[in-house]
Amino acid sequence: MKAMPKRIFVAAYRQSPFGKLGAVTIPGIVHQALTEVSSDAGFPLEVVDTASVAGCLTPLTGDQVLLSGLVASEKGLQSKPIETVENACASGGQAILSVVHRLLLGEGEVGIALGVEKMRDDEGKADGKRIGKVLGTASHPDDRPGKVFVFPHLFAEVMDRYLKEWGVTERDMAHVPVTFYEHAQHNPYAQMRGVSMTVEKVLTIEGPNRYIAEGLPLKTFECSQISDGWAAIVLATEEGLRRLGVDRARTAELVGFGQATDPLSTKGRDVLRPAGAYKAMRAAYETAGIGPEDVDVAEVHDCFGIMGALAVEILGKVPAGQGARYYVEGKARLGGGALPINTSGGLIAKGHPISATGVAMVGWSYWQLTGQVPEALQVKNPRYAATFNIGGPICASVTTVLKATA
Amino acid sequence: MKAMPKRIFVAAYRQSPFGKLGAVTIPGIVHQALTEVSSDAGFPLEVVDTASVAGCLTPLTGDQVLLSGLVASEKGLQSKPIETVENACASGGQAILSVVHRLLLGEGEVGIALGVEKMRDDEGKADGKRIGKVLGTASHPDDRPGKVFVFPHLFAEVMDRYLKEWGVTERDMAHVPVTFYEHAQHNPYAQMRGVSMTVEKVLTIEGPNRYIAEGLPLKTFECSQISDGWAAIVLATEEGLRRLGVDRARTAELVGFGQATDPLSTKGRDVLRPAGAYKAMRAAYETAGIGPEDVDVAEVHDCFGIMGALAVEILGKVPAGQGARYYVEGKARLGGGALPINTSGGLIAKGHPISATGVAMVGWSYWQLTGQVPEALQVKNPRYAATFNIGGPICASVTTVLKATA
Repeated sequence: MKAMPKRIFVAAYRQSPFGKLGAVTIPGIVHQALTEVSSDAGFPLEVVDTASVAGCLTPLTGDQVLLSGLVASEKGLQSKPIETVENACASGGQAILSVVHRLLLGEGEVGIALGVEKMRDDEGKADGKRIGKVLGTASHPDDRPGKVFVFPHLFAEVMDRYLKEWGVTERDMAHVPVTFYEHAQHNPYAQMRGVSMTVEKVLTIEGPNRYIAEGLPLKTFECSQISDGWAAIVLATEEGLRRLGVDRARTAELVGFGQATDPLSTKGRDVLRPAGAYKAMRAAYETAGIGPEDVDVAEVHDCFGIMGALAVEILGKVPAGQGARYYVEGKARLGGGALPINTSGGLIAKGHPISATGVAMVGWSYWQLTGQVPEALQVKNPRYAATFNIGGPICASVTTVLKATA
Repeated sequence: MKAMPKRIFVAAYRQSPFGKLGAVTIPGIVHQALTEVSSDAGFPLEVVDTASVAGCLTPLTGDQVLLSGLVASEKGLQSKPIETVENACASGGQAILSVVHRLLLGEGEVGIALGVEKMRDDEGKADGKRIGKVLGTASHPDDRPGKVFVFPHLFAEVMDRYLKEWGVTERDMAHVPVTFYEHAQHNPYAQMRGVSMTVEKVLTIEGPNRYIAEGLPLKTFECSQISDGWAAIVLATEEGLRRLGVDRARTAELVGFGQATDPLSTKGRDVLRPAGAYKAMRAAYETAGIGPEDVDVAEVHDCFGIMGALAVEILGKVPAGQGARYYVEGKARLGGGALPINTSGGLIAKGHPISATGVAMVGWSYWQLTGQVPEALQVKNPRYAATFNIGGPICASVTTVLKATA
């Protein structure tokens, strides 16, 4: 798409703290999310025309499909166009694009995209083996044999390739999670707030920190969290903004997006230069009419530390192979004199409730562009934000570019 | 949508026989479907710009999410916009709308919508209890307690309400499956081809035919089948048709569609006049610029016999409460002098591979409009076809109207 055929704005955003939601049901989470995002923004759900919802894991963790019917259960949302979408960990991003498509087509003026996930039990405990198996369903069956934890194992292989291809060290890579843990300390919604992380800790195999798969370099502290959480965003056209009575200066404009899906198996393709991810990011920039140099703040999909490194390359800030160095040099850190990455704390430190993640990236970016993040994390006068959300082993990619309106 | 902003055509359609696919994997089914639909239509997959795929049950029956990554594994489809969608038994319909949205927005000129499901084991056996539990995930948790088979039970309640509200008998209702079994005898893809059904058989409790839930009127022979199957459809803009080299006269035009979702629970709403279903059907007619009187052939969502009756009402052919009579009077039958319903055999007799169903409805309608169904089932010179696909307990509705181009 060369340019957006219609202007689309983020009008409101809410999320739960990521981590442990306690004894709540999936219907309860959906109800809370929709209630909070509408009451916070000061409008009744009756003004919403359409919605999309993602809860990729809920069939397996919550015996629930057809989440759209739970959304439609809210007063004001009955009998409206509401669909459920899924692209694994990019499900949240797909929910946003699904709403954007309908708004662009004139099927409505105000839409909500919602991502929900309940990965822990009511006491907050995570069954790592079970979650590992559930997440493994987002891989190709041929890639599963011989792997206890399929996803960390697949990304451990990607990390191993990266280190060997580019001569990068485990110590270099350790700067990725350290950067995100630092940011997370100031984010009240972050799961790992209160937990300090250092390069030495990442490199020291003790306690919970271990190599995920024998002979491969990925360690526990480089992995994202097992999280409950929800994220809900309100998107609107110009007419929609008028209906909501939202001041334009309190919005961010969604000026570009991209989506591309690569083969599910990591075999036989260059996962260090994932074609779909690059293509989706280029598409978002092209539609926005900007380049990487224009972006002031970015939220990317650091399901594992290696993806934090790759993301900086995919964003176009550095050539392939130099992403890890970006973290070593402190450029990814807020105040590092370059594009700060994951000021929210990212999936590693903010948490990763699978289908909420893609929504939360855009939501946090909107908060950044409207000056609503905690002061310690606020980028000064940002003009453009970029997001990069993936599903599966760098398989499905969803990207967006947001622009400040103030 | 008052009218389609761009012309969209069905350019090709293929499906598997519904019923038993034997020892095939989910990746194998996706591969077969995409290979067959493209080779049958005589084009390579390289010409396809985008795709959507649905396999609602595959997380639970096949340990597989992110089907989009399997679609992207085909040569020619890598790194293209491909998403997975889900609205329970309306997932196939949503896959079509997802592609339609992207074609209307100019994100591509040729798209494929695919629905796949593997509900039986490799020997073709169905584990009814397991499938019952899996399908039960498309209901509201509050509606599940006390029900062994959640879905048939919920629809048995709807049927019971219908009989009591309108003074309709079980004998009247028995005409619904009988009509569909009759049609299925001539459809080579139908699971119940070769099985005869009569009103007396439906009414006689013996062998496999029993009341599904005590005190409620729904019987086994009024239920749809447990089926493996896939259905793949190629949609194209006018530019896309030129690229494919498909003769316009061999296409059908998609001139209208609708989608609406009602609350997931059946409690507290009028399931005999489901608001979302009526709204979605009206939307499709309005966009197409036609009324019920213009429709020559229809495929509807008869997951249970009661839905066959309700569907005729939702299509607007008869007022609420007179749907069953439409079957008793033989009007739903091909050659009955009225709008024939489910000339394919419907979900009850053609089979119901959950996520393939919505795609197959549109595919069969395209075959009807282009004279490609077996002669015994061919409606003479049909001009318009309508489809009505639902997910959950009359929760999510997807409707389309197709027009002959010849």
